[in-house]
Amino acid sequence: MDFSEKTIESHGIFKGKIIRVRVDTVLMPNGRQATREIVEHPGAVAVVPLTAGQEVVMVRQFRKPIEQQTLEIPAGKLSPGENPAECATRELEEETGLRAGNIRHLFSFYTSPGFSDEIMHLFLATDLQPGSQSPDEDELIGVEKFQLGQLVSMIVHGDIVDAKTIVGVLAAREVLG
Amino acid sequence: MDFSEKTIESHGIFKGKIIRVRVDTVLMPNGRQATREIVEHPGAVAVVPLTAGQEVVMVRQFRKPIEQQTLEIPAGKLSPGENPAECATRELEEETGLRAGNIRHLFSFYTSPGFSDEIMHLFLATDLQPGSQSPDEDELIGVEKFQLGQLVSMIVHGDIVDAKTIVGVLAAREVLG
Repeated sequence: MDFSEKTIESHGIFKGKIIRVRVDTVLMPNGRQATREIVEHPGAVAVVPLTAGQEVVMVRQFRKPIEQQTLEIPAGKLSPGENPAECATRELEEETGLRAGNIRHLFSFYTSPGFSDEIMHLFLATDLQPGSQSPDEDELIGVEKFQLGQLVSMIVHGDIVDAKTIVGVLAAREVLG
Repeated sequence: MDFSEKTIESHGIFKGKIIRVRVDTVLMPNGRQATREIVEHPGAVAVVPLTAGQEVVMVRQFRKPIEQQTLEIPAGKLSPGENPAECATRELEEETGLRAGNIRHLFSFYTSPGFSDEIMHLFLATDLQPGSQSPDEDELIGVEKFQLGQLVSMIVHGDIVDAKTIVGVLAAREVLG
């Protein structure tokens, strides 16, 4: 069955440095009209960096929208036209100082498709070598390592609250068996 | 280490029916100023409805921001002051026509804490009984059942693209063993 919604009108609301917001009026297949509030995002990458000892390299940072520090896998926004695998390699080194000898795309997903088009490309990074840390000027980041099994336990107990990190850790567990 | 960011200024940009957008100017602990574009969301619930035969009841619907139909676990936005477990039970019945005899909170997470405060409360619903389907007037929904293991395989192959659904399915797999 086709549930597609045709755009009748589209109003730009906000063009920020990162997001854009618009409101669409749509025609539903049942003939009804509805409005959709949509946040456009450039897309992002997230990386599960796995050491030879099965540890995951994590970053701790402050997230203003939720007013709390979170423990996350390394991630970052795509620059226009940037290749996701190259972006993942770059962001990993910038945030953790580690260079990935091997980077593997696991899958891609949408963080909240009900109101946003943000896509997240998920990678597994292995064969980690020392590189040079150089976070963005508006990012303050702490780096910590955890065993994969410990992270799974933290997720189930609600101690990790970032969706891409939960997806990354549980997917790595699934893929690595 | 405390990476907290103090709000210096906050500008409201948009008040929609579902989201609100604001731009904050913040003072970082290193003395720098930065702007943060923030999407406020009322929060939501998502439910993994598990049948006695270990099947998961899924919904298919069109998502305007990504212009595609997605296969998702049942979910819905919180009304102001609404209890998440009651919201989960209500949304499950509205979208699938199934009443949950048992509803268990697994954990809660943020879908994209870099730019939004949307929180997602995740539940596992069992002891499913026939109730009555009554989707919102601006939602068209199809209901399908899948084996839990089949859904895990679909996730790894990139055939399920919704973050809360990936989290819900992989978490159910982890919790159920």
